[in-house]
Amino acid sequence: MPPAHPFDDDKLKEECGVFGVIGVADAANFVALGLHALQHRGQEAGGIVSHHPVDGFNSARRFGYVRDNFTSQSLMQTLPGPLAIGHVRYSTAGSKGAAIRDVQPFFGEFAMGGAAIAHNGNITNADALRRELIERGSIFQSSSDSECIIHLMARSLQRNIPERMEDALRRVEGAFSVVAMTRTKLIGVRDPMGVRPLVLGKIGDGWCLSSETCALDIIGAELVREIEPGEMVVITDDDGVQSHFPFRKQPSKFCIFEHVYFSRPDSIIGGRSVYETRRQIGVELARETPVEADLVCPVPDSGTPAAIGFAHESGIPFGMGIIRNQYMGRTFIEPTEQIRNMGVRLKLNVNRALIRGKRVILVDDSVVRGTTSRKIKEMILDAGAAEVHFRIASPPTAWPCFYGVDTPQREKLLAATMTEEEMCEHLSVDSLKFISLDGLYRAVGEAAGREKSCPQYCDACFSGEYPVTPRDMIAKGFQLKAAE
Amino acid sequence: MPPAHPFDDDKLKEECGVFGVIGVADAANFVALGLHALQHRGQEAGGIVSHHPVDGFNSARRFGYVRDNFTSQSLMQTLPGPLAIGHVRYSTAGSKGAAIRDVQPFFGEFAMGGAAIAHNGNITNADALRRELIERGSIFQSSSDSECIIHLMARSLQRNIPERMEDALRRVEGAFSVVAMTRTKLIGVRDPMGVRPLVLGKIGDGWCLSSETCALDIIGAELVREIEPGEMVVITDDDGVQSHFPFRKQPSKFCIFEHVYFSRPDSIIGGRSVYETRRQIGVELARETPVEADLVCPVPDSGTPAAIGFAHESGIPFGMGIIRNQYMGRTFIEPTEQIRNMGVRLKLNVNRALIRGKRVILVDDSVVRGTTSRKIKEMILDAGAAEVHFRIASPPTAWPCFYGVDTPQREKLLAATMTEEEMCEHLSVDSLKFISLDGLYRAVGEAAGREKSCPQYCDACFSGEYPVTPRDMIAKGFQLKAAE
Amino acid sequence: MPPAHPFDDDKLKEECGVFGVIGVADAANFVALGLHALQHRGQEAGGIVSHHPVDGFNSARRFGYVRDNFTSQSLMQTLPGPLAIGHVRYSTAGSKGAAIRDVQPFFGEFAMGGAAIAHNGNITNADALRRELIERGSIFQSSSDSECIIHLMARSLQRNIPERMEDALRRVEGAFSVVAMTRTKLIGVRDPMGVRPLVLGKIGDGWCLSSETCALDIIGAELVREIEPGEMVVITDDDGVQSHFPFRKQPSKFCIFEHVYFSRPDSIIGGRSVYETRRQIGVELARETPVEADLVCPVPDSGTPAAIGFAHESGIPFGMGIIRNQYMGRTFIEPTEQIRNMGVRLKLNVNRALIRGKRVILVDDSVVRGTTSRKIKEMILDAGAAEVHFRIASPPTAWPCFYGVDTPQREKLLAATMTEEEMCEHLSVDSLKFISLDGLYRAVGEAAGREKSCPQYCDACFSGEYPVTPRDMIAKGFQLKAAE
Amino acid sequence: MPPAHPFDDDKLKEECGVFGVIGVADAANFVALGLHALQHRGQEAGGIVSHHPVDGFNSARRFGYVRDNFTSQSLMQTLPGPLAIGHVRYSTAGSKGAAIRDVQPFFGEFAMGGAAIAHNGNITNADALRRELIERGSIFQSSSDSECIIHLMARSLQRNIPERMEDALRRVEGAFSVVAMTRTKLIGVRDPMGVRPLVLGKIGDGWCLSSETCALDIIGAELVREIEPGEMVVITDDDGVQSHFPFRKQPSKFCIFEHVYFSRPDSIIGGRSVYETRRQIGVELARETPVEADLVCPVPDSGTPAAIGFAHESGIPFGMGIIRNQYMGRTFIEPTEQIRNMGVRLKLNVNRALIRGKRVILVDDSVVRGTTSRKIKEMILDAGAAEVHFRIASPPTAWPCFYGVDTPQREKLLAATMTEEEMCEHLSVDSLKFISLDGLYRAVGEAAGREKSCPQYCDACFSGEYPVTPRDMIAKGFQLKAAE
Repeated sequence: MPPAHPFDDDKLKEECGVFGVIGVADAANFVALGLHALQHRGQEAGGIVSHHPVDGFNSARRFGYVRDNFTSQSLMQTLPGPLAIGHVRYSTAGSKGAAIRDVQPFFGEFAMGGAAIAHNGNITNADALRRELIERGSIFQSSSDSECIIHLMARSLQRNIPERMEDALRRVEGAFSVVAMTRTKLIGVRDPMGVRPLVLGKIGDGWCLSSETCALDIIGAELVREIEPGEMVVITDDDGVQSHFPFRKQPSKFCIFEHVYFSRPDSIIGGRSVYETRRQIGVELARETPVEADLVCPVPDSGTPAAIGFAHESGIPFGMGIIRNQYMGRTFIEPTEQIRNMGVRLKLNVNRALIRGKRVILVDDSVVRGTTSRKIKEMILDAGAAEVHFRIASPPTAWPCFYGVDTPQREKLLAATMTEEEMCEHLSVDSLKFISLDGLYRAVGEAAGREKSCPQYCDACFSGEYPVTPRDMIAKGFQLKAAE
Repeated sequence: MPPAHPFDDDKLKEECGVFGVIGVADAANFVALGLHALQHRGQEAGGIVSHHPVDGFNSARRFGYVRDNFTSQSLMQTLPGPLAIGHVRYSTAGSKGAAIRDVQPFFGEFAMGGAAIAHNGNITNADALRRELIERGSIFQSSSDSECIIHLMARSLQRNIPERMEDALRRVEGAFSVVAMTRTKLIGVRDPMGVRPLVLGKIGDGWCLSSETCALDIIGAELVREIEPGEMVVITDDDGVQSHFPFRKQPSKFCIFEHVYFSRPDSIIGGRSVYETRRQIGVELARETPVEADLVCPVPDSGTPAAIGFAHESGIPFGMGIIRNQYMGRTFIEPTEQIRNMGVRLKLNVNRALIRGKRVILVDDSVVRGTTSRKIKEMILDAGAAEVHFRIASPPTAWPCFYGVDTPQREKLLAATMTEEEMCEHLSVDSLKFISLDGLYRAVGEAAGREKSCPQYCDACFSGEYPVTPRDMIAKGFQLKAAE
Repeated sequence: MPPAHPFDDDKLKEECGVFGVIGVADAANFVALGLHALQHRGQEAGGIVSHHPVDGFNSARRFGYVRDNFTSQSLMQTLPGPLAIGHVRYSTAGSKGAAIRDVQPFFGEFAMGGAAIAHNGNITNADALRRELIERGSIFQSSSDSECIIHLMARSLQRNIPERMEDALRRVEGAFSVVAMTRTKLIGVRDPMGVRPLVLGKIGDGWCLSSETCALDIIGAELVREIEPGEMVVITDDDGVQSHFPFRKQPSKFCIFEHVYFSRPDSIIGGRSVYETRRQIGVELARETPVEADLVCPVPDSGTPAAIGFAHESGIPFGMGIIRNQYMGRTFIEPTEQIRNMGVRLKLNVNRALIRGKRVILVDDSVVRGTTSRKIKEMILDAGAAEVHFRIASPPTAWPCFYGVDTPQREKLLAATMTEEEMCEHLSVDSLKFISLDGLYRAVGEAAGREKSCPQYCDACFSGEYPVTPRDMIAKGFQLKAAE
Repeated sequence: MPPAHPFDDDKLKEECGVFGVIGVADAANFVALGLHALQHRGQEAGGIVSHHPVDGFNSARRFGYVRDNFTSQSLMQTLPGPLAIGHVRYSTAGSKGAAIRDVQPFFGEFAMGGAAIAHNGNITNADALRRELIERGSIFQSSSDSECIIHLMARSLQRNIPERMEDALRRVEGAFSVVAMTRTKLIGVRDPMGVRPLVLGKIGDGWCLSSETCALDIIGAELVREIEPGEMVVITDDDGVQSHFPFRKQPSKFCIFEHVYFSRPDSIIGGRSVYETRRQIGVELARETPVEADLVCPVPDSGTPAAIGFAHESGIPFGMGIIRNQYMGRTFIEPTEQIRNMGVRLKLNVNRALIRGKRVILVDDSVVRGTTSRKIKEMILDAGAAEVHFRIASPPTAWPCFYGVDTPQREKLLAATMTEEEMCEHLSVDSLKFISLDGLYRAVGEAAGREKSCPQYCDACFSGEYPVTPRDMIAKGFQLKAAE
C-alpha cells in the first residue's frame, strides 16, 4: 500500500487517531463512526478491538478507509459487545512496506486477562526499550514503537492491568495519548506534557474517549472535558470515571500544529473552535504581512478559514480561485507514467476566469518541502494571474517532529535551509510571508504571545526547541539546535 | 452497485459525461484523465474504447470511479492507439440493478467497419424506437436508451459511418451530445437545441471533445469553442475538423441547470465562468430576498459560490458553519443499521462554536425532496443557532427533467406540491426564499431576464415548459402542465 | 484468463456442456448442480439464465468453475423461478482473450418476448451467416458462432419462438445440441445427424435436458431417453414434452470421441456405460496389440478404464504407476518461470518403487501433439522402468474436429505428419500401438466394425471423412482429404 | 474460512506439512513446489519465510492452496534468497474461525538474530507451557500450540539459536517434526519417538527437509535418508549436515496411520513404497475377511491401492464403481441450502451400469464417524447393487489422536461406541470387516505382527495406547483406557 497522494508528501501528517467507548450496545459501531470522523488523522489503516461478556475479545484490522471496511454488517457482527476501542494510522515515511501486523490496537493476553491498547504519539526511547525487551525474551510482532507498551505491561509485577499500564508508561519517553481496554475497563492516558490531544465524552449511560471532539459529534456524544496532561482515567460501568495522575507533573506542551492543520476545523480544543482559531490566524497574518491585491484565494481545503480571516481583515475580496476535484481519495495502484506526472493537477484546477489578470493572494496553512507551492504557483500564473503572493498561516517549518507526526528529514524542509527571502526567490513568487511565532500564539489565544522561557505549546517544528529529548533519533545522528 | 450517498438522492443528477481525443499517442490515457475531471457528471461507472491501427478496437468498462480503474498500467496497456472515446454515467433511479452491459461506450460492427458511441442526454422517443427495431429483428443488449442509436446506424442505407449517424440521429428525439469514433474519425454531435454541453479542444497536433472545459484543463488542452446546437463535427488526422449541420435549425435551449449545479465551478460555459455565474446568483438572491442575520453559511460544497456572492452583496460575514467529511466517497456496501440511520451526519458536521447563538443564512443550490434541507436545519438548531434562513440559488424545482438528468417522480418534488410558504412551514425554518426565474436569467447574463415567449434556456424543471415533447413519458402517463 | 494446464493442451477438448430444467422450484439451483457435473465439458466459464413469473428473466455469467460461482446463496438468489438453462464452455484456442460477453446462454428480446439459448457444437457456416446478418443491420455482441442463431431468430417471420428457432436452425450448418427457453417453454434440439449428445430426464413433476446422464444423477433425475438426431422437443408445464422433427432426415453420426474421452465414465450413451465401453476398448487393444510386460499402468485419470480392461484381458497386473496431484485445479495466474517449466510434474508423479525395474505398459486415451506422452515417458524412465510400451485407446488423431471440439491445427497433430512407427521413434519408446478403427467400433458395440460406405459414427478426427462440409474452414484454406 | 468438504469431516486429517531448503537460488520457489506436493497434509493455509543476505527475512502467509498463492511472480519476488522454509496446515476442528496469525512459520527476533520455525505435530503440554510463559511476561500472538516453542527459545539462556531450540524442545512433550531457519542455517528436528515423518534430500549443492519424499520428487531432489527419531540436523552452506541427538533416547513410535492414509501413495517411508504397503493391506484384508462377490470397488481415491490388492488376492474383478468429480476442490463459501444437502453426491457418482445387479465389495481406508460410509452405501444400493460388503483397510478407529492429527471427539468415533457387528447393522450393509491390528503390522512389513509389550508403531488411534501422555487433554477431562 503506497503512501498517499503524489503531492501529499508536502504536508506534515498526523500519524494516528484513537477512539474508545464503554457502556453502549454494539460499541464497535460507535468506534467505527468515531474513527470515520478521525480519518484525517490516519488514512492508511484502521483497527477495532471489542469485548463481549460471552464472546470475549474480538478484533479486526484492515488497510484502507474506515468507511470501506468497518461499515459492513458482516464485519461488524464479528465485533460484538459493549466495550470497544479503535485506531486509525498513517504509514510512517520510509517504512518498507506496510504490514497488517503493524496496525493497532495491539492486544496482549496477561495472567489476569487480556488488554488492548491504541496509541497516538511516538515513543522517543522505543529503540532502547525494544533492545532491552528482546534481551529478556520478548518476541516483537510488529515494527511499531507502540508495541513496547504492551511488552512492558506483560513484564510488570503489578497485579492489575491499569497499574501495569502505569508501570509501562513510566518507562516510556515521548508523546502519547493512549486509549486502552480490559474486559471491563476503558482506559485513557495522556503523557505528562499532554502533547497529543484526548477528550472525554458522554453518550447515553456510557462514556467515550476520542482524539478530537468532531468524533463525539458524529455519534451524538456530549463533550465532558479534555483529559489533562499526565492524567489517567479508568472508566467502568459501575464506578464511572476514576482519575489518576501517575506521572511527575510537568509543564503543559500541547502541539500547536493541531491548531494550525492536524485537527478538523469543527473540533474544539481548549474551549476554542479550531475553525475560529484558523480564521484568527488569517486576521493576524493580514495585519502582519499586508499586500495590495485583488483577490484572497485559499489553497483548498486547509487554507480556507485563514483565507476568510485574511480577506475579512484586509478588505480584499475572497474567492475560490482553486477548485478541488472531489474524486481524489487515495493514491493510485500501479499508476501509468502519465498519471504519475500529473501530480497536483489531478486534485486541483484553477478557476481561470476568476484568476485572469488579478493580483492574487494565496493563503496556505504551511510550507513543508515547497514542491506543491511551486506547482500551484505555476498553475495560477498559467491561468493569467498578474501577481502571486503567498501568505502562510504558520511560521516556517524548519524542524522535524518526533512526537507522532510524519515529517520529512530536516534537510528536505525548505525552511531548514533557506530564509524567507530565499524561499520567495526559490518559488519565484511576488511575495512570500509567514505568520510570526508570536502572531500564531496570539491567534491561539495567548494575547501576550509566546513565553520565551517556557513556551505554552510544543512548537518544536518551528522553534527547534524539543520539550522531550528525542533520544533514539540522537542515537541515529540527529543534531539538536545549538544552544544560543 | 447501489445508488450514491444516503442523502444524495436529494439532488438532481447529471447522468453522463463524454470525452474523446484523436491524434495523440496513447489516447486512452488522456480520455481517462478527462473522465476523471468529469466524474461529477457520472459516478457509477465508466468506459473507454480505443482504436489502434494494428490492434484494432479495444474496450474496457468498469463500475466505480475512473481513478480506481483507469489509472493502472495493466488496464491502460490494453487500450492502445491514437484515438479513443470514453463515458462516465450515473445509474438511472429505479433501474433494477446496474449491469456492465449498460455501461457505454456502445460498440457496433458494421459492414464498413466498427464504430463506438458515447451519449450524454436522453432520447425521449426511445421506447417507441426500441419496439420498432425489435420488430425488425434487432437484438438489444442493454436497457439503455442510447443503444437505439447504434441499431439505427446498423440499419441505415448510407455507405459511411458519419452519414449513418446523421440518419440515426434524425430519427431520435430528445437531448443529446454524442461523442463517437470510427477507425479514423472522432465525431461530435449536439442535438438541434443544444440542451447538453459539448466543447472542442486542441491538444498538441490532436483534438479533443468534452462535456466541459474543466476536462480540457486537466490534460493541458486549449479550449477552441463550443460545438454549436445541431452541429456535427468529424475530425480526422488529415483533414482536421469538418463541420456539418445535419438537422433542421431550432432555437437554442441550453440546460440552465448546468449553470446552477451540474457543471464544475471551474468550467466555462458560453464564455462565462460557472463559478462567477453562481456567485452572481448569490448577489441576485441577496437583492431579491434580504434578511437580517449574523452569518452567511454555504451548504457545502455546491452552495459555496452563491454564499460568497450573497455575503458580499449583503455585507453579512461569510463563514463555514458546516464542515464536510473529506472521506465520504461513495455509498456503503451492505451497511449496518446504524450506518443507514446516520444519513447526513456521516458527511457533514456543524461548526458548533461558530453557529452558536447566531442568526444563520444557509445558502443551498436547490431543494429537491427537501429531506436533506430538513436534516441540515436540525443540525444547525441543535448546535444552538438563533434563527435559520434558507436561501436557494435556483427557483423551485417543480418538474422532472427528461433530457438526461436523474430526477425523482414529480410527486416527490417538494415544490410540485407546496408553495414557498408551505415549504417554509414544512421545513420549520424562520424563512425560506428561492431566487426568481428572472433573477436566475439575469445572473447567467440575460440582463432583461427570461423571454416568456421563447426562453433562452431549457428551464423545464422550473417552468414545466418542455422544449421537446417527452413522448415516452406521456405514453407512460406523465401529464404536461395545462396550457394557461 | 489463460488456457488450462501446461500440458492439457495435449488433449482434444469438448467445448461445451448444456443443461436446462423446467417445473421445479428454484430451477437455477438444479442447473448449477447439473453444470457442476458437466464441468469436464467446459472449464473456463459458465452461465445461467432463469425465468420467474414476476421477476422475469435474470442471468449470471462468470469465469471460473461452477462450484466457485454458482453455489453461493447471494448469487443464486438473483436467479429465481421454475425454469432455467445453463452452459459451461472452454475458450476456443487462438481466440484473443476471453470476454464475459462470449459466455452463454445468449439472450434476445423479440417482439413476442424473450428467449435464451445455450449451444453445444459448432456452426460450420457461421462466418458467412455473420457477414450476411451484419449487412442487414444486426449488431453482434460476441465473437461466438452461436450468436448467429439468436440473430436469425430475431429476423424470422414466424410468430412464436419455437418456430423462429426452427427457421434459424434450418439456415445453420454443422453440429449442435441446443437447450433454449422462453418464459414458459424449455426447448431442446439436436442437429439432423445428432453429432453432439443431449438427453431428456424427469425430475419430480418437472423435466430436464442435459448433455450427459451424469448430470441427471447428481440432481436425482431419472433418464427418460436421448433426444434423437434432428429432433426438437418443446416442454411446458401444461403439455409436457412435445416432439417435432423439423429437419430433413439424415443418417446418424454421433461423435465417437464422446465414448473415447469427452463423456464422463459414469454417463450412459446409447444404453451403454461409457466406463464399460472404455474398459472394452482396453480389451480390444490387448487383443490387437499384445506385448510382454510386468505392469499395466494407466495415464491418469482418463486412461484408467482401458488400462483395467487391458490388464484383465492380458493377465498382466494392473498398478497405479503414476499418481496425480489432487490439488491441480486450473492453470496459474502470472506464474513464475520455474512453475512454467515444471509442466507435467506439477500434476503427476511417478510411483518410483512400483515402476523400478519393470516393463511397463502405459495406457492412454489418445495422442494429440505427443508433448505430454514424451514427458511421461521420461518420468517413467527416470524412475528406472526397464521398458516403456504405449498403448493408445483410440486410433491416431490425424484430423481436426470442426464440430465443437477444440483441436490444434492439423500440422500440430502428431499423427497428421507421422506413421505409427515414426511416432514410436519420435517418442523414443519401446513400442507404441493404437487401437484400430474397426477395433474401436467393435468396442462401442458394432460387432461388425465400421461400415466403410456410411460409418455409424462421426470419426472425422481419425478418418478425415467429414459428414458436414466445414465451409468456413475451407474458405480459410483448410484442405479436405483427397478422394481416394 | 470454513472446514473442508461436507463429508471430509469423516476422515482423520493430518494437520501439517513442512518443507525447507538451503543453498539454492530463489529457495522460496522450491519451497512453494514442495508445499504443493504436501498439500494433502494441510489444505487450509500455507506460509513461507525466506532469508536473503541483503534483504533479510521476508514472509508471506495465505489462506488457500499453495498453487493459488505461491505461484505468482509478484508474490514470490517478495521472498528472495537462498534459504527458505514453509508450512501447510489444516484448521483444527472446533477452533473458532481461522486467523492468519495462526498460520506458520512463526518468526521471532532474538538478541542474536531472527529465527523462523514450522512445526508438524502437536505439543501435549502446550496449555501448561503457555500459562507459565504468560505469567513470565510473554505475549502470545496466535492460538497455536506451536508458538510455545518460539517463546521458550526467546527465554533460553543459550547463546546461539540451535542450542536455544534444543532448550525449548526439551521442555516440550508430544510429537513434533520441526523445520527451522536462522540467517544461515536450516534446522530439522524430530521428537524422540519420531512420531511424525521428516526426510533429508539433496538438490544440487543444496539440501532440503520435507515431511514426505513426494515433495523431493517434484523439485528433482534426491532422497538422502530419513531424519532419525530424536535427531537434530543443522545444515549450513559451509559445513553441510551436522547431526545431534539432544534428547534422551526412547523407542521409535512412527505413526502407522501415515502408511494407511496420510502420506501420498508415491512417497517412500522406511524404504517402503506407501502404495505398495496399501496394496499389501488389501492382500491381507482379502485373506482375513474373504467374501463371495462380483466386483471389488474402491472408495476413491484413497481406497484404490488396497482395492487393487484385494482384487488381486481374491481373484474378484476390480472395477471403478464410484467416480469422483474432478472439480471438487475445497468447500463452498456461503453455500445454498441445496448445496449443503448434497453432501457426497457433489463429489462422487455411482457408475450405475457397472454396479447394477452385482455383489459389490467396497474397499475404504478407514471408518471414522461412519457418515460417509452410510451415504456411499445408499448410493450403491440406489444404483441396483445386489449386495454391499465393506472392507476397511485399517482396524477400527476407536481413539482420538493427540499428536498432530485432527480427530473428532471420542464419542463421535463409530468404533468407540460400537462393535464390528453393531457397526455393520448401523450401516445396514451385508457385511463389514476391518483388517486386524496384526494384519496391518504384517502389511507394513512386520512379519511377526505387533509386539504387544512395545509396539513398533504409534497405533493409539486403534489401540488406545498413547506413547506420550496427553497431559493437556487429561486436564480437560479426557479418560485414558483403563489398564487391562
